[in-house]
Amino acid sequence: MSELKQMDYSSLQHLHDQAKKAFDIIKQENLSLNMARGKPSVEQLELSLELLNSVNSENIGDNFSILNYGVVDGIPEAKVLFKEILEVDTEEILIGGNASLNIMHDLISKALLKGVIDSEAPWGKEENIKFICPVPGYDRHFTICEAYDIEMISVDMLEDGPDMDKVEELVRNDASIKGMWSVPKYSNPDGITYSDEVVERLAKMETKAKDFKIFWDNAYVVHDLTDNPPRLKNILEACKKHGNPDRVFMFASTSKITFPGAGVSAVAASKDNIDFIKEQISVQTIGPDKVNQLRHVRFFKNYDNVLAHMKKHAEIMKPKFDAVLNILQEKLGSYGIATWAEPKGGYFISLNTMDGCAAEVISLAKEAGVTLTGAGAAFPYGKDPRDRNIRIAPSFPTLEEVEKAIEVLCICIILVSTNKLL
Amino acid sequence: MSELKQMDYSSLQHLHDQAKKAFDIIKQENLSLNMARGKPSVEQLELSLELLNSVNSENIGDNFSILNYGVVDGIPEAKVLFKEILEVDTEEILIGGNASLNIMHDLISKALLKGVIDSEAPWGKEENIKFICPVPGYDRHFTICEAYDIEMISVDMLEDGPDMDKVEELVRNDASIKGMWSVPKYSNPDGITYSDEVVERLAKMETKAKDFKIFWDNAYVVHDLTDNPPRLKNILEACKKHGNPDRVFMFASTSKITFPGAGVSAVAASKDNIDFIKEQISVQTIGPDKVNQLRHVRFFKNYDNVLAHMKKHAEIMKPKFDAVLNILQEKLGSYGIATWAEPKGGYFISLNTMDGCAAEVISLAKEAGVTLTGAGAAFPYGKDPRDRNIRIAPSFPTLEEVEKAIEVLCICIILVSTNKLL
Repeated sequence: MSELKQMDYSSLQHLHDQAKKAFDIIKQENLSLNMARGKPSVEQLELSLELLNSVNSENIGDNFSILNYGVVDGIPEAKVLFKEILEVDTEEILIGGNASLNIMHDLISKALLKGVIDSEAPWGKEENIKFICPVPGYDRHFTICEAYDIEMISVDMLEDGPDMDKVEELVRNDASIKGMWSVPKYSNPDGITYSDEVVERLAKMETKAKDFKIFWDNAYVVHDLTDNPPRLKNILEACKKHGNPDRVFMFASTSKITFPGAGVSAVAASKDNIDFIKEQISVQTIGPDKVNQLRHVRFFKNYDNVLAHMKKHAEIMKPKFDAVLNILQEKLGSYGIATWAEPKGGYFISLNTMDGCAAEVISLAKEAGVTLTGAGAAFPYGKDPRDRNIRIAPSFPTLEEVEKAIEVLCICIILVSTNKLL
Repeated sequence: MSELKQMDYSSLQHLHDQAKKAFDIIKQENLSLNMARGKPSVEQLELSLELLNSVNSENIGDNFSILNYGVVDGIPEAKVLFKEILEVDTEEILIGGNASLNIMHDLISKALLKGVIDSEAPWGKEENIKFICPVPGYDRHFTICEAYDIEMISVDMLEDGPDMDKVEELVRNDASIKGMWSVPKYSNPDGITYSDEVVERLAKMETKAKDFKIFWDNAYVVHDLTDNPPRLKNILEACKKHGNPDRVFMFASTSKITFPGAGVSAVAASKDNIDFIKEQISVQTIGPDKVNQLRHVRFFKNYDNVLAHMKKHAEIMKPKFDAVLNILQEKLGSYGIATWAEPKGGYFISLNTMDGCAAEVISLAKEAGVTLTGAGAAFPYGKDPRDRNIRIAPSFPTLEEVEKAIEVLCICIILVSTNKLL
């Protein structure tokens, strides 16, 4: 195998014809494989089925207050569980409903309507506000910004997190930059964990907006695939140390620990921030579903059990990740037409084709029955400026399906790349 | 018993001294009774305990998609259940999380940020917007308006709903009136059910604001206390008939059917409205807790069972309502110092003292260990202009506690009233 760019015309043509033939055969198979979203598989969901039994009519005891109104910040026992996951104090945490995305959205809509704790005016009263978006990133974050006309400024992800020189320069000079998205551990889709230096610089940097907020979506906080996972520095502590205690909102949920549709979410921040948020949420609701919080508390009992539970997830996920990486290596090897990350956790493998190929690859794969995340999805406004990024989500299909889908993907990449070079 | 206003000085003084003596004795009892909020009692919560078992690891079957992401508008089976409760089609309904208040809040915050289906601009972009608030009403509705600087215009509740002459005049002439709150069946706190004529007039009236919306909080839709409950006219149908299909958002929840903290909520509206809302909610969340929706569907199976279940609630609630009414009649009788409603359902009994007495009565009752809803709570900005309304919530305490609490309340009313007249 040599780099395609070095290949002579006839070798390239031969490779192209082979790929075309393989593609045509596969199309006959009428495949229907979906690697579009980071959804846990049935096998993973089965790991948590006992959770459904942890609160029932027999074992509810005299816990009737849990069924009634109130406790807007979540039950204390759930705070104890999440405080270890997020490494904060119980007074720095608020437990919500089934989706941390919902809390993020609501914090932004409330910031627009009312402002955050240190705002002089609601964000929505300002002419134009902006968020920094490390790219590639999580499409649903960007959708929130787009829906509310928050201008998105892309900043490239480097090997250890967002390009901090760029971030620092932007926030120092532009008062309209009010926030920044981050998936700091096993970033979506690159699988990058922010280095200590990046965390420190985020906590310390000077921001022209006094009410600048980092939305720290720690979605994959315990989603390790190896025994020696990278350690993410605690940004709330760093923010406190540097005199910016109210800068960060940290999020986590059990969506990819227990059930995506029926998990429990949490936000952590400085005590002042949490008190402020609690007051805002009290306008919105009388309280979250406390029964589901209790289910989770009883199912896990403690943090060690959460980690043990995640090892079982890893046992299911790791072979799929390995399969993707092995097949990519085997089929694309040193052709020099694609690079990919080798994440130590999370839900995705991010692949970059040659510039200008991703959309066509994704479209061809779809034609062959393999649905991938839409082209550009990982970028603000759905536009990948280099049209090269493909997010691979291997969790939901079976191992066999993953293998098949990646083989198809490789064929499509070769087809599009050779086409481009010929 | 004669009217206090007709009593001579010494009879009044005697009554006052008796009440004072009774009050002092009660204070020694160190009571701690709470009639402040419309919370179901433990006995009521017990009616639904089996719901906790209706989805478990044994009976989940192959229903794994219910555990995973998606279905932002709720599971079809839940729509089938709620469509009968709200008398709409399944395409006119969206099933949410544990709190309909949350949906109401979110619809308003999205209206402010993005507008409703027929808005030319987001409500928040207009100089000043206003909501009509029938009074007395539900404090949490008013809190949402207050939080977002929506000016509240009080309109008195009459015997069959809000004063429609006033409502029609207001909305016809003022384009800044964008919405109106309503608890149309067993209104909070008066227990009034809107007459057919009121519903018709609301559906038909001319509004200067083209994007005027009625928030139809049908919280007590199946919460009858009698065998011949009043029938509320279907406002969505009426709106359609009069060419205003998008005027109304209807809400219901199982908060006071199953569990206040862990129920299921729903919003119903025209299909166009629901499609519009669904798109807005898709920005906010990937989906509601579908497992809890399935629990409810399996527990109730059908609408008839919901009604049968509500009869059991009524069996628990009715004696408490009767106790309140009997004691009020017995102790205050024809003194002419208080009037009260005799609701046929819902959660509250609304009592009016003489003008200028409510706050003092509530404060005295508190001193004697009986917590009532705060004075003015049922009015915008917490201000009862005549300082006379007291909301009695008899559901949560036991029957004995209710009896005791109302006796205390009556003593406080006599004490404050005689003081005022002496």
